[in-house]
Amino acid sequence: MTDTATRTTEYLDPGEVAALDAWWRAANYLSVGQIYLLDDPLLERPLEHDDIKPRLLGHWGTTPGLNLLWTHLNRLIRQRDVEAIFLAGPGHGGPAAVANAWLEGTYSEVYPHVGLDREGMRRLFRQFSFPGGIPSHVAPETPGSIHEGGELGYVLSHAYGAAMDNPDLLVAAVVGDGEFETGPLAASWHANKFVDPVHDGAVLPVLHLNGYKIANPTVPARIRREELLDLLRGYGHEVLTVEGDDPADVHQQLARALDSAHDTIREIQRAAREDGDLERRPWPMVLLVTPKGWTGPATVDGVQVEGTWRAHQVPLAETRENDEHRAILEDWLRSYRPAELFGDDGAPVPALRELAPIGTRRMSASPHANGGLLRVPLDLPDFRAHAVEVTEPGCSINEPTRVLGRYLVDVVRDNATNFRIFGPDETASNRLDAVYAVTDKVFAGEIRDVDEHLARSGRVVEILSEHTCQGWLEGYLLTGRHGLFSCYEAFIHLVDSMLNQHAKWLKTTRELEWRPRIASLNYLLTSHVWRQDHNGFSHQDPGFIDHVVNKKAEVVRVYLPPDTNTLLSTMQHCLASTHYVNVVVAGKQPVFDWLTADEADLHCARGLGIWDWASNDDGDPDVVIASAGDVPTLEALAAVSLIREHLPELEVRFVNVVDLMRLQDAQEHPHGLTDRDFDTVFTQDKPVIFAYHGYPWLIHRLTYRRTNHHNLHVRGYKEEGTTTTPFDMVMMNDLDRYHLVMDVIDRVPHLGSRAAAVRQLMGDTRRRARAWTREHGEDLPEVREWSWSAQAQPRRHRSPSTTADPSPTQAD
Amino acid sequence: MTDTATRTTEYLDPGEVAALDAWWRAANYLSVGQIYLLDDPLLERPLEHDDIKPRLLGHWGTTPGLNLLWTHLNRLIRQRDVEAIFLAGPGHGGPAAVANAWLEGTYSEVYPHVGLDREGMRRLFRQFSFPGGIPSHVAPETPGSIHEGGELGYVLSHAYGAAMDNPDLLVAAVVGDGEFETGPLAASWHANKFVDPVHDGAVLPVLHLNGYKIANPTVPARIRREELLDLLRGYGHEVLTVEGDDPADVHQQLARALDSAHDTIREIQRAAREDGDLERRPWPMVLLVTPKGWTGPATVDGVQVEGTWRAHQVPLAETRENDEHRAILEDWLRSYRPAELFGDDGAPVPALRELAPIGTRRMSASPHANGGLLRVPLDLPDFRAHAVEVTEPGCSINEPTRVLGRYLVDVVRDNATNFRIFGPDETASNRLDAVYAVTDKVFAGEIRDVDEHLARSGRVVEILSEHTCQGWLEGYLLTGRHGLFSCYEAFIHLVDSMLNQHAKWLKTTRELEWRPRIASLNYLLTSHVWRQDHNGFSHQDPGFIDHVVNKKAEVVRVYLPPDTNTLLSTMQHCLASTHYVNVVVAGKQPVFDWLTADEADLHCARGLGIWDWASNDDGDPDVVIASAGDVPTLEALAAVSLIREHLPELEVRFVNVVDLMRLQDAQEHPHGLTDRDFDTVFTQDKPVIFAYHGYPWLIHRLTYRRTNHHNLHVRGYKEEGTTTTPFDMVMMNDLDRYHLVMDVIDRVPHLGSRAAAVRQLMGDTRRRARAWTREHGEDLPEVREWSWSAQAQPRRHRSPSTTADPSPTQAD
Repeated sequence: MTDTATRTTEYLDPGEVAALDAWWRAANYLSVGQIYLLDDPLLERPLEHDDIKPRLLGHWGTTPGLNLLWTHLNRLIRQRDVEAIFLAGPGHGGPAAVANAWLEGTYSEVYPHVGLDREGMRRLFRQFSFPGGIPSHVAPETPGSIHEGGELGYVLSHAYGAAMDNPDLLVAAVVGDGEFETGPLAASWHANKFVDPVHDGAVLPVLHLNGYKIANPTVPARIRREELLDLLRGYGHEVLTVEGDDPADVHQQLARALDSAHDTIREIQRAAREDGDLERRPWPMVLLVTPKGWTGPATVDGVQVEGTWRAHQVPLAETRENDEHRAILEDWLRSYRPAELFGDDGAPVPALRELAPIGTRRMSASPHANGGLLRVPLDLPDFRAHAVEVTEPGCSINEPTRVLGRYLVDVVRDNATNFRIFGPDETASNRLDAVYAVTDKVFAGEIRDVDEHLARSGRVVEILSEHTCQGWLEGYLLTGRHGLFSCYEAFIHLVDSMLNQHAKWLKTTRELEWRPRIASLNYLLTSHVWRQDHNGFSHQDPGFIDHVVNKKAEVVRVYLPPDTNTLLSTMQHCLASTHYVNVVVAGKQPVFDWLTADEADLHCARGLGIWDWASNDDGDPDVVIASAGDVPTLEALAAVSLIREHLPELEVRFVNVVDLMRLQDAQEHPHGLTDRDFDTVFTQDKPVIFAYHGYPWLIHRLTYRRTNHHNLHVRGYKEEGTTTTPFDMVMMNDLDRYHLVMDVIDRVPHLGSRAAAVRQLMGDTRRRARAWTREHGEDLPEVREWSWSAQAQPRRHRSPSTTADPSPTQAD
Repeated sequence: MTDTATRTTEYLDPGEVAALDAWWRAANYLSVGQIYLLDDPLLERPLEHDDIKPRLLGHWGTTPGLNLLWTHLNRLIRQRDVEAIFLAGPGHGGPAAVANAWLEGTYSEVYPHVGLDREGMRRLFRQFSFPGGIPSHVAPETPGSIHEGGELGYVLSHAYGAAMDNPDLLVAAVVGDGEFETGPLAASWHANKFVDPVHDGAVLPVLHLNGYKIANPTVPARIRREELLDLLRGYGHEVLTVEGDDPADVHQQLARALDSAHDTIREIQRAAREDGDLERRPWPMVLLVTPKGWTGPATVDGVQVEGTWRAHQVPLAETRENDEHRAILEDWLRSYRPAELFGDDGAPVPALRELAPIGTRRMSASPHANGGLLRVPLDLPDFRAHAVEVTEPGCSINEPTRVLGRYLVDVVRDNATNFRIFGPDETASNRLDAVYAVTDKVFAGEIRDVDEHLARSGRVVEILSEHTCQGWLEGYLLTGRHGLFSCYEAFIHLVDSMLNQHAKWLKTTRELEWRPRIASLNYLLTSHVWRQDHNGFSHQDPGFIDHVVNKKAEVVRVYLPPDTNTLLSTMQHCLASTHYVNVVVAGKQPVFDWLTADEADLHCARGLGIWDWASNDDGDPDVVIASAGDVPTLEALAAVSLIREHLPELEVRFVNVVDLMRLQDAQEHPHGLTDRDFDTVFTQDKPVIFAYHGYPWLIHRLTYRRTNHHNLHVRGYKEEGTTTTPFDMVMMNDLDRYHLVMDVIDRVPHLGSRAAAVRQLMGDTRRRARAWTREHGEDLPEVREWSWSAQAQPRRHRSPSTTADPSPTQAD
């Protein structure tokens, strides 16, 4: 085992080097053309002012390195019939991916108006970073891409997610040395401890050390080389170094390094698959050290550009107005000898085209990089098989996520290589551990006797890095599979920015017909804000919902199932859906069951509805009490029962919201209710007391256009908390049953003096509850022991004409 | 240089070992007591049901390791008169920090009701994780803490931030091996490349390998030891390993390792300070390998607990009801031999108390861990000295952040060791590079001739990790200094969850009188959503504002200065403020100057106001056009000028909002306007067309209670974007001048047929603008060349009686 590929100029014969170099030059030529040229793509006349784009956008610095790697991976693919995809961490080098896709013919297949000819090349150049054209990064629009790289840090976790359950796939993942400094990337090196060499494919990381970021050298380029090698070995890799600035020499080194890496990968996989040798060995990686902006202008206006940060974006800024700059650009383009590479018609010469792999072996055409093509819907059990029996609302108690775990047993068992559960060390804590009956947590590190459910293979993947979990799942989904991310609610904020990027990807690809839909990204947020009384303030944050609903309505869904059966119905729906971000917030603590399986299914399909058994209005209530979320629903129902006891003449309608987007206007969100439906449920003029799981203003933000909005009074989390009891948490935020009753009394007019006495009683009870908690360290017995079933509850009997519930939504 | 401390049993004499062990046992005893006991703190009678807390909350697993380290650091402090603070990455081991603070006497000094006696110990135990008591983590309430550790990943970046400009300080930073897996932590190891050994103090990282997380082994514990050592060496450390489960042996090893580490630190600092040797050398760190839950119950109910993940939280769950568990607990407590440690009065015996450092040398009493004590207000220049001259609104053009850079030159120069600028490689890109006239970017790695402004010392700290930047700044602020974080707007979302934690810290410490206020955390978000036309969709996200305003109103402020002078005034205000999170969003691209320095200062003090020169109403406008943000202000003013040209009879009031929180109700936010003031500015009944920088619904969320809210029509970013031109970006989101005019026409009643023709013209112009952009790759000339000054603008002349502007806010 060696850390450095031996330098040799003998590994390839000269003809092969020349061929590789020709492809590389062609890709570089096409990249520079994209950044600069509006016209004259083949340099058939001297470049003129109008041939140059008025705004020069793009990143040259990383591009020649990406092109070089693509070139050499194509050689590996052809020679060894490898199935590979390419993930460009420095995705701002968009011109490279586009250039190679065009050379491989894929670009013209996907976008026929950009043909493999002179006019196609002109359009290819013109459209890049041009209004109405394509983005500057390796975007969803780029064939062969599942990774944009606009926000840095996720290339390795995406790559490892893509490799999971794809035993024959090689995922080449280029890590820029700027990206190397980011947290998410730094953590994701350890993803190699979760590779199952029997059932997973391989990731080949390439750390491309070109030395500079926007305005600085990079850290890994300026520590001692031996220190960097220690670090990479410490990450669990055998390092193959390729270094130089002489193309002929670097071609030799890189070909040898890639062959060697592939040999090692094959041997690790062979040993595991044939010999059952599952001992973790270092996986190979390449350290590629070449100049930033290699083959570009060495100096411009007397200042060094090639090999410095000045090559990061556009090395020549004034090529339209400045004749000297334009002449340098023309020399630069001609240095690639385009006449050797493209025929008079503009098409790549046959010798070049022959270097491309065939069909779907082309990295630009791999179906793995267009996961919707490969996606097989999950084989899902009917949730009713796992539903809990509910004879009367509030008569039984279950832990929703624990029951969900039993449902997931079937999902895992019936979708052996198509579904995974990701989480930061919390699958058991979130009470999904039933799944360990049929699977394990995958781990390639040392496994000891004391460990439980840890094995070399498994459907559960746990590392204490939300970033890595999210990246894995994204990579897994983008390559056509399904999954679930289970996480503490507060800490899912760690991946806010990753969610942004994935939601943008979904939004953009919805508009690309050639990219079929992928599976939804499903979050199960349990251990939520109201059940972090034991961990304290730092663990209490329900704001991820607010973050998600800022994304494009077409791609986000938020569900707050109030009990076990509604959670099951919701998750079944989410797991069957495609191309959404589904956020499901549900409890792991024991809660009352409110709905039977059938009731739950209908309620979830409606998204929100009146619970007749908790209502006593005859179509014209005095007040609407609404809830969204499990703890708010408990408190709201307890408030209803207090009202029944103390103010029985008050007609209360109870509404539960499970699909939060139903609150929004139908014109704003596909799940939104029409105003007419909304008014029917929430009335046009009655006070609405809304007990909500998260920050209360979100409900206002979703409903501000509704007729009755001025009567809406929302309680929720208002950023008060500490380590205390569960009921003290709701009291600290005025979401408790007693306060909700006080809110009702304050909002319903003309209630009279008895109501004032009840209000006083509620206030007294709150103070008593607070004092009890401080004295005894647990909640007031009457709070702990409360149950709906203990109340004699009159039910609302609806005639069909008074039905106010909305129809089940048509949108999934 | 050795990676392993030689195992010896001879390093300390037996008496010293016994003393160390006594302190450790005392801290462990006090930790277990906190987790379990309501009463009988000294075990003066057999433990009974009622002596045990009804809800057992806390994390034992990490606690003995934290206690051990505190014990030994105290030895180092005493023997060498070291000034040190302690950062517990596994901050959930709260009992440890509290126990040591009590033993050192600090706890009783800060909280006199928790005395150093039997009753004090009883209260100490009872209050832990108890309603009305203290949180379970190392919280703001804990003396000696600047780091809670509830959300893992930030201990090293906090530590390095604390060490900056504190040349005599040693920051001990314990990294849990669970936390080790997180992204932010992984990146922050490289913070050691930004230590200036002359002017900064030292960080001593301790990786505590106790092997397990909640339900899994940790990755670093299950890779080959040599691999882990490679990794840590690769991070730039000399590793001193301390490993064992025999306390006597581990005491010897740890004492030797800490002495050795301190020797190396002193030598690096001496060489740098005395010999001028600034070559980066490996800094020492300790790898501490001890069992999880060490000294706790070895097995419970026949299952191994000590040394496994089962010791993570509470090893004995049923000590209240289960006599056998309670007996184990009592044995466990007695194993620490409390009678030797505490007198009959409950106070620590004199021999123990003598082991504590003196006064502020106690880590629990260090003023560095209570930065408000040390904070020296910045010496700030008057921004007017750098203000740009404005003769008429819109007659001149400046780049706001470039001018701000010149202001920051003074700030840097006049606050030599009290102010730093942090950023992810973007200080120059964000056009603050004027500061390099008086300072450099600090870097301890190799510096080459080609580098610019890179030096061994400097006020600018850049790494391509937003997490590390944020952590550094937090650590710097929490220890009493000031700073600024300059970042791309979209990618500041990377630190959403860190912002949450810091805002929670600020919220909690506002209520702790013994913690004086620290400097505000100032964000400058430039390269914002409207100016990422070149980088594309992935770089376009204005949602950080939405995230921030979910935090407690008392601690968050959001500013959107529309031009250069307002940016200067705003930043001066923010830099002088304390205990807030200030978010300032401002452009780096050239924009018109609208306000003189005096006008800007008044406008910023008011937070929002009517711009008379852009209004032609006489107190009763037909429509209000409002703006917040630089680009929206430009478009809104251009819309006003279009209205003047085409519908001159329309009376328009122009309002600009610089302090976003002014929109909120005075009862919701200290900056909020009263309804009366709001109505005076925005009218009670006229259409308001609001051009906003971010997601439009935020404006609705802030104003939904306002009288005229139903007339408010907001344009902003609605998640549409790509790589295109600046004006195409605003058009894609219907924020452009033409669309704003159309909005005005749609909202103002009774405008007649000429307005319909104007509306048609605006629509046609938009289409023409779009087509031009697609044809030419740049914006329509009349858009690029528009200027306010080119218009003949009638001005509003206000009599004092029509003054509608709010008074300057009293809140800072």
